Amino acid sequence: MANDPPDLDWLFHPRSIAVIGSTRFDKKTQRIPHAIYFTVALRAMGYPGALCIVSRSGASEISGEEKVYASILDVPGPVDHVIFCTPARAVPPILQECAAKGVRSAVIFSSGFSESEDPQGRDLEAEALRIAGKGGIRLIGPNCMGLYCPESGLNFRADLPNNPGATGMISQSGGMAIRTIFHGTEKGMGFSKVVSYGNESDLQSWEILDYLARDEKTRLILAYIEGTRDGRALARSLREASRRKPVLVLKGGLTPDGSRAAGSHTGSMAGNDRLWPAMLRQAGAHRVLDVNELVDTAMTFSYLKRPAGRRMTLMCISGGLIVNYADVAVRHGFEVPELAPATRTALSEVINTPGTSFANPIDMASLFFSDRIYAPLFEALDRDANTDFILFIVAMEYMRGLEFQYKISVQRIVEAFIGFIARVEKPFVVVVPPSVEEESRLAVERTFLKARIPTFLSMDGALRALAARIDDPRREAVG
Amino acid sequence: MANDPPDLDWLFHPRSIAVIGSTRFDKKTQRIPHAIYFTVALRAMGYPGALCIVSRSGASEISGEEKVYASILDVPGPVDHVIFCTPARAVPPILQECAAKGVRSAVIFSSGFSESEDPQGRDLEAEALRIAGKGGIRLIGPNCMGLYCPESGLNFRADLPNNPGATGMISQSGGMAIRTIFHGTEKGMGFSKVVSYGNESDLQSWEILDYLARDEKTRLILAYIEGTRDGRALARSLREASRRKPVLVLKGGLTPDGSRAAGSHTGSMAGNDRLWPAMLRQAGAHRVLDVNELVDTAMTFSYLKRPAGRRMTLMCISGGLIVNYADVAVRHGFEVPELAPATRTALSEVINTPGTSFANPIDMASLFFSDRIYAPLFEALDRDANTDFILFIVAMEYMRGLEFQYKISVQRIVEAFIGFIARVEKPFVVVVPPSVEEESRLAVERTFLKARIPTFLSMDGALRALAARIDDPRREAVG
Repeated sequence: MANDPPDLDWLFHPRSIAVIGSTRFDKKTQRIPHAIYFTVALRAMGYPGALCIVSRSGASEISGEEKVYASILDVPGPVDHVIFCTPARAVPPILQECAAKGVRSAVIFSSGFSESEDPQGRDLEAEALRIAGKGGIRLIGPNCMGLYCPESGLNFRADLPNNPGATGMISQSGGMAIRTIFHGTEKGMGFSKVVSYGNESDLQSWEILDYLARDEKTRLILAYIEGTRDGRALARSLREASRRKPVLVLKGGLTPDGSRAAGSHTGSMAGNDRLWPAMLRQAGAHRVLDVNELVDTAMTFSYLKRPAGRRMTLMCISGGLIVNYADVAVRHGFEVPELAPATRTALSEVINTPGTSFANPIDMASLFFSDRIYAPLFEALDRDANTDFILFIVAMEYMRGLEFQYKISVQRIVEAFIGFIARVEKPFVVVVPPSVEEESRLAVERTFLKARIPTFLSMDGALRALAARIDDPRREAVG
Repeated sequence: MANDPPDLDWLFHPRSIAVIGSTRFDKKTQRIPHAIYFTVALRAMGYPGALCIVSRSGASEISGEEKVYASILDVPGPVDHVIFCTPARAVPPILQECAAKGVRSAVIFSSGFSESEDPQGRDLEAEALRIAGKGGIRLIGPNCMGLYCPESGLNFRADLPNNPGATGMISQSGGMAIRTIFHGTEKGMGFSKVVSYGNESDLQSWEILDYLARDEKTRLILAYIEGTRDGRALARSLREASRRKPVLVLKGGLTPDGSRAAGSHTGSMAGNDRLWPAMLRQAGAHRVLDVNELVDTAMTFSYLKRPAGRRMTLMCISGGLIVNYADVAVRHGFEVPELAPATRTALSEVINTPGTSFANPIDMASLFFSDRIYAPLFEALDRDANTDFILFIVAMEYMRGLEFQYKISVQRIVEAFIGFIARVEKPFVVVVPPSVEEESRLAVERTFLKARIPTFLSMDGALRALAARIDDPRREAVG
């Protein structure tokens, strides 16, 4: 590896944590103080080490299980890691005490540093960096959420999911990290380590990336990046990480208006905008355009083995919908080619129901979810020379029609159907677009996801994710 | 009007209907017969006229409230309208009897006509057309669902919504009509008349379009079209209708693979593919690319007055998300310009909370949903010379964070927020992307929709719909 890869494993396994900041409940804003917020988050994740709060004002007005000390120097045992929730100007002096205490790492949640319009912010950040460097403390941030690692109990928000998984993430934005964790979890994914790194004063994005690239618990890497001071090092790390694992990158601030926003968000120079897409391509990383696409693509890498190409067999119950969906597929650079002659012959021998068309796209028409159809159909498609993958559109309005016509539940139909899909060799994806009441759509989507079948809300979303999956040479799903 | 516009009002107000087809429950397929299906649908919609079933086999095995006759000629009173659910070959002879009975219109649900591969299908369709022409019967279809008109009790599916509304639709595909009705209803819309017209043997798409253009109950027209025999007449009607009302067109079969699918779906020649986009543009109709976009755009026309241009004030609580959303906006040809100096001055006088940036996009940061912010903020934006409309991103993960931090419910926050939006003069749209559990997202989306604020699942969807809305010269929402 070109960069010198730090072993950051210790960062994700601190033996003890102190959360630093006021614990006073602000009667005016009616808001729970941040120090309590982080403490509750760690407690909710079941952090197994020693946990305490450091607050100048001493004892909290909100009762908690953690002891509150007036100074970090008063904490009896060692403190490996601290989380700063103080005002920016309080960070340097307290950081000095942390160094004396032997603290090894500090997340600075506080904002008001180089990202702010206040010129003092930049000085405060430089001062914190100087103290940390001298004291041997690695700084994460400032202006970030810090570390999320369900496996070791690290957390920055009480309601984040506590299941570990194979997806790692670096995110310059805490909001993007939170959104991705929640939305990814809705899609059935779990996370190994997520680092919200904000202003990137000390710990660099490329360092975390190098670590995730080697971390055995991480098999897929997501990145949200607004800018960086060392583009060359980041490019090197992206290239090296992409060689080892799929890397999906969402770049913020690629347009003038977005870049202006990034400037006031993390103080990043989001510039060199035309260079980023080329750099990511050269690095072998996959560029995604928004947070939805980030999650959809991550889910696809998690569950789907690589389709050999862009030729799909497109199946739906509704003839009108399937014409439009075939159009959308072609517009995205996919093909919905005719099935091979051998496939058509095979199918016509076993299935000859009027109204059902075995041209591709396949309009299931009146066949619906007939058990006797699916086994021979999927068997024939598995052998079809023109099919790289199968895309099934679940038309919820038809599913509900089936409930009425056949007096069986949609849930049972879907479960039976998943049984057939399980035997399909070729990559199989499902799209369940909005239709009748969202609740029923959601139940079906979740049933497919539970079976680890990539399931999308929209054809657009499915195709963008599939394009990235197909572009990646790795054959197997990361799981 | 260039075409001779038929008054089709009688078609949507038949005094009596006979559903024609077998009522025998098929023990093998376990399926409710189509004739029962349509009868139940009409009953569910509260069709107020006389309703009966005509079935060669006589009395139904499924008990119903409607009388079953062996022949249409046995029905005691007059029959204005019939719905054919028989096999294709049975249509011509029974249609002959319908003519004798004085039937005025017939929906032919049956398939197996010109859309099928069977050469006999084309002959059967010609034969039906000849009999209908001679007998003074207008044919809808074959191979269609027919008429949906909640106001007069017409219906083709038992679970379709029974609320009337201002949206009319012509659809060559029954599936597309059903999907649009369901999804549109989820978005809070209602429908005046929907005609699924299938093979278009007699009643032409342009005739229905001419009618909807003049129908006072219809203020917005949607069209799903795969092909037509008389492109010139359809173009004329689209132009005329677009002059009177917004017309949104989804063309099926614009790509080679989609066109092949359309061929086997409605037997349409979907060809002349490059001509369609130009024709629609010249007609002043809005082209949409998929069924989601059709519904999103229809909702936007229903609720939103026209933004004066493409310059948005973009607001969100999350800095990281807003950078990406600004990028997406610019990529779609919108602008997120800096607020006018006067606006920034006005805002800095009333609001000076650290961390909140009043550059555009507006990162609400720690201000969240503070009552004291919104009145002066929206007042300033209403006067802002650089803002054509306001787009608000609701980050559900932050909303849930608020519940925790401030101990108030998301529902209450949203309702208070809607109170502030009500006073905003400029067009206002909301995007609520997937995040935490879909159920909570859905509750928020529905609360906004209930207040008739255009609410989208994705930024992409919002921007595509807004682009169409801005392109349309009409100022007011169709309601």
